[in-house]
Amino acid sequence: MPDYKVAFSPLERTVTVAAGTTLLEAAGKARIQIDSACGGDGICGRCKMIVREGKVGGDVSGLLTREEIRRGVVLACQTTVEGDLSVEIPEQTRAKEKIVIDLDAQRFRAARPRTRKREFENSPIAAKVLLTVDPPSLQNNLDDYRRVELAAREATGLASLQTGLKIIRRMPGALRDGEFTITVTIGRRRGVGEVMDIEAGDTTDDNLMVVVDMGTTTIVAHLMNASSLQTLGAQACFNSQAMYGREVTARMIAAEKHGPECLQRLLIDDINGLISSLTVEYGVGLRDINAVVCAGNTAMMHFLLGLPTDHVRRSPFIAVTGEPPPFRAAEVGLKINPRGLLFAVPGIGAWVGGDLTAGILATGLRERDDVAMLIDIGTNGEIIIGNKDWVIACSASAGPALEGAGVESGMMAQQGAIEKVYVRGGEVRYDVIGGGKPDGICGSGIIDVIAVLLDVGVIDRAGKFVAGAPDPRLRLGDGRPRYVLADKKQTLTGREVAISQEDIDNVVLAKAAIFAAARIILERVDMSFTDLGELMIAGGFGSYINLDNAVAIGLLPDMPDGRSTYVGNTSIWGAKLAALSSEARKLMRRIVNETTYYDLMGSDDYVDQLKQAMFLPHTDIELFPSVSARRGARQRET
Amino acid sequence: MPDYKVAFSPLERTVTVAAGTTLLEAAGKARIQIDSACGGDGICGRCKMIVREGKVGGDVSGLLTREEIRRGVVLACQTTVEGDLSVEIPEQTRAKEKIVIDLDAQRFRAARPRTRKREFENSPIAAKVLLTVDPPSLQNNLDDYRRVELAAREATGLASLQTGLKIIRRMPGALRDGEFTITVTIGRRRGVGEVMDIEAGDTTDDNLMVVVDMGTTTIVAHLMNASSLQTLGAQACFNSQAMYGREVTARMIAAEKHGPECLQRLLIDDINGLISSLTVEYGVGLRDINAVVCAGNTAMMHFLLGLPTDHVRRSPFIAVTGEPPPFRAAEVGLKINPRGLLFAVPGIGAWVGGDLTAGILATGLRERDDVAMLIDIGTNGEIIIGNKDWVIACSASAGPALEGAGVESGMMAQQGAIEKVYVRGGEVRYDVIGGGKPDGICGSGIIDVIAVLLDVGVIDRAGKFVAGAPDPRLRLGDGRPRYVLADKKQTLTGREVAISQEDIDNVVLAKAAIFAAARIILERVDMSFTDLGELMIAGGFGSYINLDNAVAIGLLPDMPDGRSTYVGNTSIWGAKLAALSSEARKLMRRIVNETTYYDLMGSDDYVDQLKQAMFLPHTDIELFPSVSARRGARQRET
Repeated sequence: MPDYKVAFSPLERTVTVAAGTTLLEAAGKARIQIDSACGGDGICGRCKMIVREGKVGGDVSGLLTREEIRRGVVLACQTTVEGDLSVEIPEQTRAKEKIVIDLDAQRFRAARPRTRKREFENSPIAAKVLLTVDPPSLQNNLDDYRRVELAAREATGLASLQTGLKIIRRMPGALRDGEFTITVTIGRRRGVGEVMDIEAGDTTDDNLMVVVDMGTTTIVAHLMNASSLQTLGAQACFNSQAMYGREVTARMIAAEKHGPECLQRLLIDDINGLISSLTVEYGVGLRDINAVVCAGNTAMMHFLLGLPTDHVRRSPFIAVTGEPPPFRAAEVGLKINPRGLLFAVPGIGAWVGGDLTAGILATGLRERDDVAMLIDIGTNGEIIIGNKDWVIACSASAGPALEGAGVESGMMAQQGAIEKVYVRGGEVRYDVIGGGKPDGICGSGIIDVIAVLLDVGVIDRAGKFVAGAPDPRLRLGDGRPRYVLADKKQTLTGREVAISQEDIDNVVLAKAAIFAAARIILERVDMSFTDLGELMIAGGFGSYINLDNAVAIGLLPDMPDGRSTYVGNTSIWGAKLAALSSEARKLMRRIVNETTYYDLMGSDDYVDQLKQAMFLPHTDIELFPSVSARRGARQRET
Repeated sequence: MPDYKVAFSPLERTVTVAAGTTLLEAAGKARIQIDSACGGDGICGRCKMIVREGKVGGDVSGLLTREEIRRGVVLACQTTVEGDLSVEIPEQTRAKEKIVIDLDAQRFRAARPRTRKREFENSPIAAKVLLTVDPPSLQNNLDDYRRVELAAREATGLASLQTGLKIIRRMPGALRDGEFTITVTIGRRRGVGEVMDIEAGDTTDDNLMVVVDMGTTTIVAHLMNASSLQTLGAQACFNSQAMYGREVTARMIAAEKHGPECLQRLLIDDINGLISSLTVEYGVGLRDINAVVCAGNTAMMHFLLGLPTDHVRRSPFIAVTGEPPPFRAAEVGLKINPRGLLFAVPGIGAWVGGDLTAGILATGLRERDDVAMLIDIGTNGEIIIGNKDWVIACSASAGPALEGAGVESGMMAQQGAIEKVYVRGGEVRYDVIGGGKPDGICGSGIIDVIAVLLDVGVIDRAGKFVAGAPDPRLRLGDGRPRYVLADKKQTLTGREVAISQEDIDNVVLAKAAIFAAARIILERVDMSFTDLGELMIAGGFGSYINLDNAVAIGLLPDMPDGRSTYVGNTSIWGAKLAALSSEARKLMRRIVNETTYYDLMGSDDYVDQLKQAMFLPHTDIELFPSVSARRGARQRET
């Protein structure tokens, strides 16, 4: 089949695709995010494009007006490329300047917590159960519903089983079509089972769920098959709520002004977009998804459910609910199986949310004999310390810089992002995800570049550019001091990729907030870093971070060898366990009840500690023996 | 305030009302049934009328188009009478030729079963619970939902409580508006509680429910306050499904052809119409109704829920469900509180429905030491016999004649119906409900007239008109033999009210079917009528029946004095108990499991018994000693 060129305006991106490719697929290849709600089924009518030139195929959609058809408007999902094309994508078709990327599912699996193996009972929040019942006769004339119910109770051990009318309506057909063998999907809502679906025959192989980490800055969704326990794929996007502020407090104020629905809609649209991309990519239907399990901080959870946050942000800081029961996902507008469930991981309090509960569960922190610390690096840096007897948590506001947001050339860890920066042959070099020209820099790259700039002397220990440093990439001249990693000619977009003084200041502030919080909480329990059995670093950087560089800039403490572990996105790992096991959900409720929240703002020396940590790596270099040793070695060399 | 005349066309009814009365109220006074879904709130836009002449008041509704306003169209509920009016009611505004009548609530209460007083635990299917909780503080910072849930669990003793997201959203507001005193409405769904509503302050005085007897021919609805245990009112209408046949089998065939939704829609419209009339009459909102409890035969229950009846009417006669769990009423389109419940009284089998379960419960039959019989006279005559140890039920097809349907001048027991017929001063006389001119004749009147005609010799014991009987009301001449109770000039409508030979034949067949079934079931347990401790007669005649006349025509057996009782509509009584008490609902499930169904069609002598019963009162006059004695006395007199 011949290949054709499709040029998309006004973004000026051109891709080459095979004849018969849909315009929606072509746009995906050009990495243009399209606002499609139905996932390409031709139902939602949102993926409108205008064909300016060239030949296309496919049927004309009934969703278009006569006037639109005259102007060349088509539905991208229903229109195929049959020649070189010039296509315009109208503003409203482009999804809210949102970037949806594919995370590497393999990588995610490798990044699972490396703590000791733990086993959880396999009892997903929505389970598929195979039932074979006796056909009715004049002697055995039990009604269809009772017949199914008795079999389902016996199979599941659930005493109380609820069923909606629509399911009961489908029972006679499903039973007879499947020759009295059926698959029922049973949701668990606090000890009560609900028959969510009924299908003829055996469909137990596929039981799809989506788990979501609702970060303040980044939202990550994984599609998984609860039957095979496999993660099929992962996608992420920046949280569209950022238009109401980078921190949750600003968003809570906005929610009070405009109504919580306003913040809810943005979040639900983001999650629906991720789910829709995952289903398109893996060729499954939205209706096949039986549950969505979300973890996030308390404000995000309120936004998800459309709950008012008025009393969350005011003393005495009362959540509407910290531990919501499972709801029907359709109640918040999530587009999955219409009877599918939405479960939000319970949070510990107004300022310590379900993402932390998930993290504590996923890392096994509260089952350890030794004391360990978990540092979850996000827009809020969260620090948890504890063992099987006690757990203390605190939260420090770090800002979004370490996630690649709020940084001049920042971006998510998607194709085109500089993910590693290092010195080779005396020169600063970088690796780009996907190997082509860079588009920007992601979180792991930002940590690297600051460590490298400190190492080569372009910035000083206060994080300030050193005037006269002998590096041509340092531009101090035009009133906008910055370090240029790639100039206009070297990038995809024609915009330079650079780190500005302000970017560095933001990162320094972020890392200082996290490090200071970790020190204070340690002091409270009268311990030091070296007393910890393990330091676990969690966070959705989208990519591995270089631990040595994170230590070099003082984001992480300088631990004895082998005691620091990068454990990945523990929020999503915990959410996944919650989706798969009622034992895990039970354990989460215990974690919620047994974790103590420590309020940093109530600590006298937080500001003092913060100031000390505003150096690279720290005012007190002795806290970082390996960094100090390396520096000493280099100084001896020169 | 002045009175004005409102003339409604094309029905040509005129009423006099006070200035300021709405057109909807005026139509109600003229007994014209209007299709209003919102109950007069100006929301549904269905009660359109055209003002042809005269002055009206009220605002112009935004639901009307410019063109409609120009043509004089108004919403009847939003338009007041301000002068003499000529008003046209368009076809679509008149509700499907349906008659909605007001039953006398007092009468209903008097007609409650006169068996020994029984007590049931007061635990309505939707209960209002008053909760007062501690206000939150920094020390007591439980979230709102948990605070309400703990209090509700303590108050109700329910271990499992579910809550929808919309209710949780309203918690912060309700708690603070009510100064931490709130009323929650908790529905019971098989041992699981569901918070259906939350209101600030104490609203426990009113907890409205509607109970419905879904008869094949007549639908009766009662509005009651579950808090005060009072019945506020009752309304009835003919079942609109009659357009698909008078018997349920014909309707099941229609459901298979056109889909069950088709039959469901007619029934739901009927019930919504009754509910809407009740709410208008008692000045309450549709949203204030927290539950609808329905009793009816198995086919009617399938129609209510929109369930396929394909396997109900075919061997081995498998219901989709005989004992459905409580659903949300909105799931079937009932317009009450959006989270309000729908409960259908469980049935015993494909041919013995929830109306019988309700009757057995209401009459206390299965708690008796002596053996009693319950005869429920409806389109199906149902006969139940038993005591605390055993209960046997059978069902005989009687047709709708005894409910005033399928009879030439038949009507429901509403204003204008002849309800009693008797001989005084040697002349046949009648009483009309409301006292004015007659419109037709209802069930109790039909039984009376046949007894009277037999008594005065106008018909013979085979139910045939006696040629040459000396009564000017008997018209044999014009090829349409009939007995004219009121000629054209004496009626409201200008149509004569008469009983035809065919009407009498229908009643004879109906009464024969019921009597034959009662005899056969007695023979099966080796008893005779005189062995019964009590004979209870149930049925929705809408009015008392004259028991002597019912015996005289052989509809009911001739029992020793005081052993026959008219117990009213036991289906609705049982439904009411189900609405008010979980103990009653539990007892219903026991009744379902412990009642034996006897299939008359399997009986060799049913046809023989039926033939014998086709005389008035019976071929074997010795079975009716009091009738035989009276006749003997009269013969001696003459």
